[in-house]
Amino acid sequence: MEKPKFAVIGGGSWATAIAKMLCANQEKIAWYMRSTYALECIKHQKHNPNYLSSVEFDNNKLFLTNDINEAVAFADYIIFAIPSAFLSAELEKLTVSLSDKIIFSAIKGIVPESSLIVGEHFNTKYNIPFDNIGVITGPCHAEEVAMERLSYLTIACNDRAKAKYVAKNLSSYYIKAKTTDDIIGTEYAAVLKNIYSIAAGIAHGLGYGDNFQAVLMSNAIREMKKFIRKVHRMKRNINNSAYLGDLLVTGYSVFSRNRMFGNMIGKGYTVKSAQMEMSMVAEGYYAAKSAYLLNKEYKADTPIIDAVYRVLYEGKEAKSEFRKLTEKLN
Amino acid sequence: MEKPKFAVIGGGSWATAIAKMLCANQEKIAWYMRSTYALECIKHQKHNPNYLSSVEFDNNKLFLTNDINEAVAFADYIIFAIPSAFLSAELEKLTVSLSDKIIFSAIKGIVPESSLIVGEHFNTKYNIPFDNIGVITGPCHAEEVAMERLSYLTIACNDRAKAKYVAKNLSSYYIKAKTTDDIIGTEYAAVLKNIYSIAAGIAHGLGYGDNFQAVLMSNAIREMKKFIRKVHRMKRNINNSAYLGDLLVTGYSVFSRNRMFGNMIGKGYTVKSAQMEMSMVAEGYYAAKSAYLLNKEYKADTPIIDAVYRVLYEGKEAKSEFRKLTEKLN
Repeated sequence: MEKPKFAVIGGGSWATAIAKMLCANQEKIAWYMRSTYALECIKHQKHNPNYLSSVEFDNNKLFLTNDINEAVAFADYIIFAIPSAFLSAELEKLTVSLSDKIIFSAIKGIVPESSLIVGEHFNTKYNIPFDNIGVITGPCHAEEVAMERLSYLTIACNDRAKAKYVAKNLSSYYIKAKTTDDIIGTEYAAVLKNIYSIAAGIAHGLGYGDNFQAVLMSNAIREMKKFIRKVHRMKRNINNSAYLGDLLVTGYSVFSRNRMFGNMIGKGYTVKSAQMEMSMVAEGYYAAKSAYLLNKEYKADTPIIDAVYRVLYEGKEAKSEFRKLTEKLN
Repeated sequence: MEKPKFAVIGGGSWATAIAKMLCANQEKIAWYMRSTYALECIKHQKHNPNYLSSVEFDNNKLFLTNDINEAVAFADYIIFAIPSAFLSAELEKLTVSLSDKIIFSAIKGIVPESSLIVGEHFNTKYNIPFDNIGVITGPCHAEEVAMERLSYLTIACNDRAKAKYVAKNLSSYYIKAKTTDDIIGTEYAAVLKNIYSIAAGIAHGLGYGDNFQAVLMSNAIREMKKFIRKVHRMKRNINNSAYLGDLLVTGYSVFSRNRMFGNMIGKGYTVKSAQMEMSMVAEGYYAAKSAYLLNKEYKADTPIIDAVYRVLYEGKEAKSEFRKLTEKLN
């Protein structure tokens, strides 16, 4: 039997990082993105002009296409790495069936149209069995993959053999990938951490310091644990890299666009103007709304998510919302 | 009955921060430090010339002395905030009895002579009952207290009333202090976090990035939990601010002298030259040895502490030790 093949869906920084990681292990991968300009640049100059432009690709290893159906038809494992807000529109273009494909999400967002995390969205809307659905999670900034700095990934799938296959194909001297069967927990962690990262940014923008940031993160991981436990109760160590590590890399790093977005809000930008200033999508913006609404059902105690929601969606002043929040933390 | 009074022992940045916090609530506190020069400066210019020099003191509130016996005699609550390496020498000067005093440690180190944490040292060597021993812990950089940035303290004492009294007297509009009875756990956390902070610094100095740092901190909190559980088993949430928060503020902050010290080691300084470059003591240097030796008895799995110990005390090369360490983390 031939080795199962991969397709990467997306042209952003994380998609580019995943393509780079896969190329270290695969003869050829399919890579789909919308931008024909970017595709032409990669073809002729070996670099994605928009993201991680320092990464040089071997074009013999790339089947580049701006037709998502060609990419999906080529591969057995389809890795989605596009903003969650664009997922539905991309999936509508599909004429090739997904039924015999294995879907891995590297998206870390909630699909706005369905209010579902990506795995659940594929299961509910496309009848993909959970055994054929997986998640790729960090802590991993794409920018450090470009620099080949040591990074650890967690690959989640109910079917461990599939998780292991993906892990093997992403691994290299600077990537260590481990596996888990907690697809719900790792995916929610990846989604929620972006909201906490916005909170960290808002706090920084408002002038809170490192002492408060440490308290915020310590409360955030406890809040995340409570939320995820309500969604899917199982034995998990919330301090593992896929949960706490992912929270920290996003909450503390200068690369985080969610933190940057929050920082602008804290400094007094309106939500609209902060979004216009940023060329990339801050996933946490959408996640805050979805998590807040979802939590009306789960009723976990989530003061940080609530504060971010009220600032982003109810026009509440960041300063007073966060002052109230400081009373609830400990 | 008169309100119990406080003495602060130490002239460093954390002692200065504690004196500032107490002055917001007390009519008069005793403040002992060795340096007569610093004492004269505070008396005449209202500022500690060496640490947190931006903080202005009201001299009417200070009983300044370079005789530790005068300070101890003045007060009911004695707060020690000197490097652990100097504690024994200071205590030897005592002629005033400690037996009716309540001792709070803000030291965050292991006493080299006894290999005990400070609370245990006072209990074992000075027969102070544990009900009269407490711990003041962060996450709290003294520098941010100087700036009056919102910070959260945890005050630990078996006798909650005493913890509450200290908490009340440290609190202000920018300080929130809560209490716990886990004096052993909070004190060990405060000690161990300095070792992890050195590890973070070494990793940074060696060129590891934010992705690895997040994995390192996620492993560090799990390692800390295992270590503390061996030392003193009780129900505690290791993700509370006093444990995880304190780890994060030290591991991530630019103010941390432990991280700075580790960073120099990672960049190739010898231990000796890194120590000479730094004007302040990196508590984690002593803690690494004590924790490593202590763990020969407890036998917790502590690969991070072990790696730091081997680099600092066995002359092992940081680069190869940390490469080995990366294989043990996940």
